Amino acid sequence: MNIYVDNAATTKVSETAITAMLPYFNQVYGNPSSLHSAGQLAAESLLIARETVANILGCSPKEIIFTSGGSEANNQALLSAAEIGKKKNKKHIISSTIEHHSILHTLEKLKKQGFEITLLNAHKNGIIHPDELIASIRPDTIFVTIMYANNEIGSIQPIAELGKICQEHGILFHTDAVQAAGHIKIHVKKENIDMLSLSAHKFHGPKGIGILYAKHGIPLTNLIEGGAQERGKRAGTENLPAIIGMAAALQEAAKHIDKTAAKLIPLRDRLIEGLTEIPHTVLNGDPIQRLPNNIHVCFEGIEGESLLLLLNNKGIYASSGSACTSGSLDPSHVLLAIGQPHEIAHGSLRLSLSEENTIEEVESIIKITKESVTYLRGMSPIWKDLQEGKRNYVI
Amino acid sequence: MNIYVDNAATTKVSETAITAMLPYFNQVYGNPSSLHSAGQLAAESLLIARETVANILGCSPKEIIFTSGGSEANNQALLSAAEIGKKKNKKHIISSTIEHHSILHTLEKLKKQGFEITLLNAHKNGIIHPDELIASIRPDTIFVTIMYANNEIGSIQPIAELGKICQEHGILFHTDAVQAAGHIKIHVKKENIDMLSLSAHKFHGPKGIGILYAKHGIPLTNLIEGGAQERGKRAGTENLPAIIGMAAALQEAAKHIDKTAAKLIPLRDRLIEGLTEIPHTVLNGDPIQRLPNNIHVCFEGIEGESLLLLLNNKGIYASSGSACTSGSLDPSHVLLAIGQPHEIAHGSLRLSLSEENTIEEVESIIKITKESVTYLRGMSPIWKDLQEGKRNYVI
Repeated sequence: MNIYVDNAATTKVSETAITAMLPYFNQVYGNPSSLHSAGQLAAESLLIARETVANILGCSPKEIIFTSGGSEANNQALLSAAEIGKKKNKKHIISSTIEHHSILHTLEKLKKQGFEITLLNAHKNGIIHPDELIASIRPDTIFVTIMYANNEIGSIQPIAELGKICQEHGILFHTDAVQAAGHIKIHVKKENIDMLSLSAHKFHGPKGIGILYAKHGIPLTNLIEGGAQERGKRAGTENLPAIIGMAAALQEAAKHIDKTAAKLIPLRDRLIEGLTEIPHTVLNGDPIQRLPNNIHVCFEGIEGESLLLLLNNKGIYASSGSACTSGSLDPSHVLLAIGQPHEIAHGSLRLSLSEENTIEEVESIIKITKESVTYLRGMSPIWKDLQEGKRNYVI
Repeated sequence: MNIYVDNAATTKVSETAITAMLPYFNQVYGNPSSLHSAGQLAAESLLIARETVANILGCSPKEIIFTSGGSEANNQALLSAAEIGKKKNKKHIISSTIEHHSILHTLEKLKKQGFEITLLNAHKNGIIHPDELIASIRPDTIFVTIMYANNEIGSIQPIAELGKICQEHGILFHTDAVQAAGHIKIHVKKENIDMLSLSAHKFHGPKGIGILYAKHGIPLTNLIEGGAQERGKRAGTENLPAIIGMAAALQEAAKHIDKTAAKLIPLRDRLIEGLTEIPHTVLNGDPIQRLPNNIHVCFEGIEGESLLLLLNNKGIYASSGSACTSGSLDPSHVLLAIGQPHEIAHGSLRLSLSEENTIEEVESIIKITKESVTYLRGMSPIWKDLQEGKRNYVI
C-alpha cells in the first residue's frame, strides 16, 4: 500500500474536477472567442468559472486572469510591477528570502534591469515580521511580494497585516498563494491583497492552470502577447477544460475547508509529535501559523535524500523540500534563510497531507521514519563523530 | 444536426488523446520532478512523450520544450532571438505581414526596444517569395520568423526553401507551425528549421499545451522563470496529462496524415468549387499550396459576421477568420496584407474541416451559404448600388 504525502508538490485530481472537465474535451469544445453557438457555449462556461473563482477569492470576475499556472502568474505579477515602477520612476521592490524561485529568479532579472530589491528575512519560525516590512519601505518602493504560505516549511505569513501596511503606504501588494489557496481561507479584499497567484494542481485541480488576481485599476503587462483573450492581458486560446476543473476543485476545497483542516491538523500534529520524538530532530516553520497539511523536520546526522529513498522503498512518497529543485544538490534556500546550518538543512523531510491520508498511515509513517533514521544514523560517519563527541550537536 | 467547420479555431479532443490523458489525472499524478516512485513514473511518461513528439518532428527529445501553447512558444522564440541579437549586436528581424498576432505584437514590443523589423509582403495568393527574403537580408539580420501555414487563408509557405536561405546566411529561422502541425508533414532537420512552435488543440489534442522546438545549441531565454523544469528553460510543474494527450494526438495525426489529406482535399475543393459559383466571390490563398482543410472566400457586398449568424442559425459553425480577433470590428490584417480592399475583407468566410466532416455536410454548407449570401445581398445597400452601377464591383 502506497502512502502519498507529497501534496505540496502536486495533488491527485479529484473526481469532482475530472467529472467537471470531461465534457469540455469533446462536447463543449468550441473556442470561447468564436462567434458561433459552440464558441458561445464555451464562453458562457468560461464566464461561470470566472465568477465561481472570483466569489471564492472575494473579488470581481473582471479581476481574474487565467494563466498556465502559479509560476506564470508570479512572473506576470512582477513584470507588471516593474512596468508600473518604470512609469512612476520607482525602483524599489520588497520581497523575502523564503519565496519560491519563480519570484526570486524573476527578481534577479529585475535587479539586472536596475531595480533595487530588499529581501526580508523570515524569522526562525519562518514568519516575516510586519515591523521589518515597515522599516524597509522607501519613498521609491513600488511593490511588495510576500508568499502567503511557504511551500517547504508551511509557515503562514500575516498577510492581512502586511497588506494593510502596503495599502497605508500606497504600495502594491502581491502574494504568491500557490500553497495556501484551497487550504486556508483567502479573501483578497478583506486581506488588502492587490495581486495574488494560485495554481490548481495544488488543491486537486488539474496541472497547467492557475490564476493571477489583480485588483481593478492595476495595469497588467502581458507576459504572453498575441490574441485579445483575458481582457487582452494573456494571449492564447483559453484552456477551458482546465479552467472548469480548477473552478470545480477550488469550489470543493472552499466548501470543505474547515472540515478538511479539522481532519488534517490532528494528523499533522501527531506526525510532528511522533517525528520530533526522534532525538536531535527539529520542526521547521511555526507550530501554529502553519498549513494544516504541512510537516517539515530536519534530522541531524543524515542525508534527506537517503531517507527519501528508504521511505520510498516502503511505499511512502515524501519530499525533502520543493519538487522544483529536487534535482539540485544545494541545500534548501528556505532552510538556510531561517538559519539552519548546511549540515542540518541537508537532513530535511517534508510531508504534505491530503484529505485521503488516515491516522493509520500517519502511525505507519512515524514508525518507518523512526526505523529509517536510526538505520541511516547507524551508517553515518557524521553521526558517529557526534556520538563520540568529535563534533557538537547542532540540534 | 450541427456541422462544425471551425477546426482552425480549435478541434474536438480525440478519443485517443482523452484515453491517453485520463490515467494522468488521478493515477500517474506525481510531479515529474519528485524523487519518489510516483514522481519517477511521471518522469518516465514525460520522457516517452518527449521522444514521441521529437520522432515525429525529426529532432532530438532534448530539443523539445513543452509550453502552455502556440502563443507562449512564439513569444519565447522571439524573446530568445532578441537576446541572441543583443549579444551579437544584431538588431534586424525579418517576418511577414500575415503572421499571427502572437508574432506581430511581440515584434512591436521588440521594435520599441530598438530592433528593426522587416515584414515581407505575402503575394496575392498568400505566399512569401524566397527572393524577397534574400533581398531583405542585412548584415545585422539575426532572425527570420515566417509561419508555416496561415491561420486564416491556409496558404503554405515554401518553408524548406526559406530555411535554406537562412541557413546559408547564418540566420536563425523560426516557423510558427500552429496551423500546419498534424495537418501536413513537418521534418525540422530536412526543412532547415531552427525553431518551431506548435499547439496541440489544433490537431485534436488538448488546449493549454504546445511545443517550442529549438535546435541544439540555440540559447533559449526563459519567458517564465522559476523551477528547473524543461532543462531550466520553462519553469512550472510539467502539465503531464496535457503533454501525454498532445503526444497521442500528434502520433495519431502523423500516422493518418496522408489518408486524412486524401479525404479532406476533395471536400475542400468541392467547397471551393461550390462557393465560388456564387457570383462576385473570390478564393483567398493559394488553390494548391494550401492546408488540406482550409477554405477561405470573400463575398462582395455582404458582412461576414451577418453570414456567420445565418450559418450558425442553420447549425453551421464557421468563422470569418482568426478566432483570436473575432471580437474585433477591424478587417483581417491578413486579407488587407494580400491586397483585399476593406469592403471585400469584411465579407469573409473561413471553413476549416476535420476528418469527421462528410460530403453530405459539404453539400449542405454550399446550399445554405448560397441561400444566405443571396438573402444578405438582397438586404444590402452596397449590393443594390453595385447592381445599379452606382459603384463598381471589385471581384
